[in-house]
Amino acid sequence: MITETQFQKELEALKENLLKMATLVEETIHDAVQSLVKRDSDLANQIFQREKQINEMELIIDEMCLKLLALRQPMAVDLRFITSAMKIITDLERMGDQAVNIAERALSLNQEPQLKPYIDLPRMAEIAQSMVKDVLDAFVNRDVQLARSVCERDDLVDGLNDQVVRELLTYMMSDPKTIPRAVHLMIVARCLERIADHATNIAEDIIFMVAALVIKHHADEKEKNV
Amino acid sequence: MITETQFQKELEALKENLLKMATLVEETIHDAVQSLVKRDSDLANQIFQREKQINEMELIIDEMCLKLLALRQPMAVDLRFITSAMKIITDLERMGDQAVNIAERALSLNQEPQLKPYIDLPRMAEIAQSMVKDVLDAFVNRDVQLARSVCERDDLVDGLNDQVVRELLTYMMSDPKTIPRAVHLMIVARCLERIADHATNIAEDIIFMVAALVIKHHADEKEKNV
Repeated sequence: MITETQFQKELEALKENLLKMATLVEETIHDAVQSLVKRDSDLANQIFQREKQINEMELIIDEMCLKLLALRQPMAVDLRFITSAMKIITDLERMGDQAVNIAERALSLNQEPQLKPYIDLPRMAEIAQSMVKDVLDAFVNRDVQLARSVCERDDLVDGLNDQVVRELLTYMMSDPKTIPRAVHLMIVARCLERIADHATNIAEDIIFMVAALVIKHHADEKEKNV
Repeated sequence: MITETQFQKELEALKENLLKMATLVEETIHDAVQSLVKRDSDLANQIFQREKQINEMELIIDEMCLKLLALRQPMAVDLRFITSAMKIITDLERMGDQAVNIAERALSLNQEPQLKPYIDLPRMAEIAQSMVKDVLDAFVNRDVQLARSVCERDDLVDGLNDQVVRELLTYMMSDPKTIPRAVHLMIVARCLERIADHATNIAEDIIFMVAALVIKHHADEKEKNV
């Protein structure tokens, strides 16, 4: 017979793995952008290996979740937590894809003279990283307020992206030779914007999940009082 | 007591709803691109309403899956099918977001003279739509061959995207006035490429899911023979 404590231990292990995967993703985003900013193609090349690790972690956690569902048959809160975890790891894995995309652009850009000093892109990356970190913390702690703050930061990233695009358009219009490099940089900005979108998607799911649990809890209370 | 037939009926209802959602997404992608090609801003405006319907369907199907997991406690094949369905509807919902993105670009572009006849973009859209349709058929029928053909079509879409980007770069370099419109069109191409990516992600999951089932089945057979 399985004790509740064992099930709780398994849930804790799941949470730990989720946070570990998020940290790996966060570092990968950071290094991908650094490979561009520092013009470090060796670092860019390391991103591809890192992405494989992220993909492996996705499979491991997915398997953990399936086992929990099959063997523990969790109800209500735990069921929602596990199915949400399965969706979150897909988002994390796709953030890894975006980091690879950035590294690929860095490899191209590092072969040409630098178009401009990179100021907004590292700023975007920093916010996006903080969103990844906080949204996973919000998830494991069911912290709606933190999840909301992640959604708010998405507007900052979108604003910076618009700014980057406007600035690059000016470069492109005044000197057509800059166009290929400017397009690469626009795509890097868009990758960071997409990473922020993934974090926001998770944050919205958390807000929805906790709200649904509150409503469900109220309904259960009412039922008890009938 | 719940009979197996009832559970099978519920699974069938889930499949029907998945296919319905996929059809809605497919039509929305089609109309978003048509709103650009036919310069029809009324049609572009309808996409926003359509996306809300897609989001609602996601919630309904998600709820169906949770209920199946909680009340039927499915094992092995069915468990994997239901958790995969929960991930697939997230992909379908994000395709809806991309269609909205295209409609927004169409609304901007329709206010200015047309930069060039659209030939590759409708072609990309057509392939992306076929991928959405086929990948859902592959999922409900566990058709690995069809899933593989979806993955193959992703290369076609990527190739067309590269072609669109190259062509637009030529426009931009020869006449800077075309740059803002060309950037809008690049983003439309990228949205279609992302839709194809989502379909490919689903296809890869199907191939993985069926392979895992085959391995699991062999292991079970071996166990029986011990």
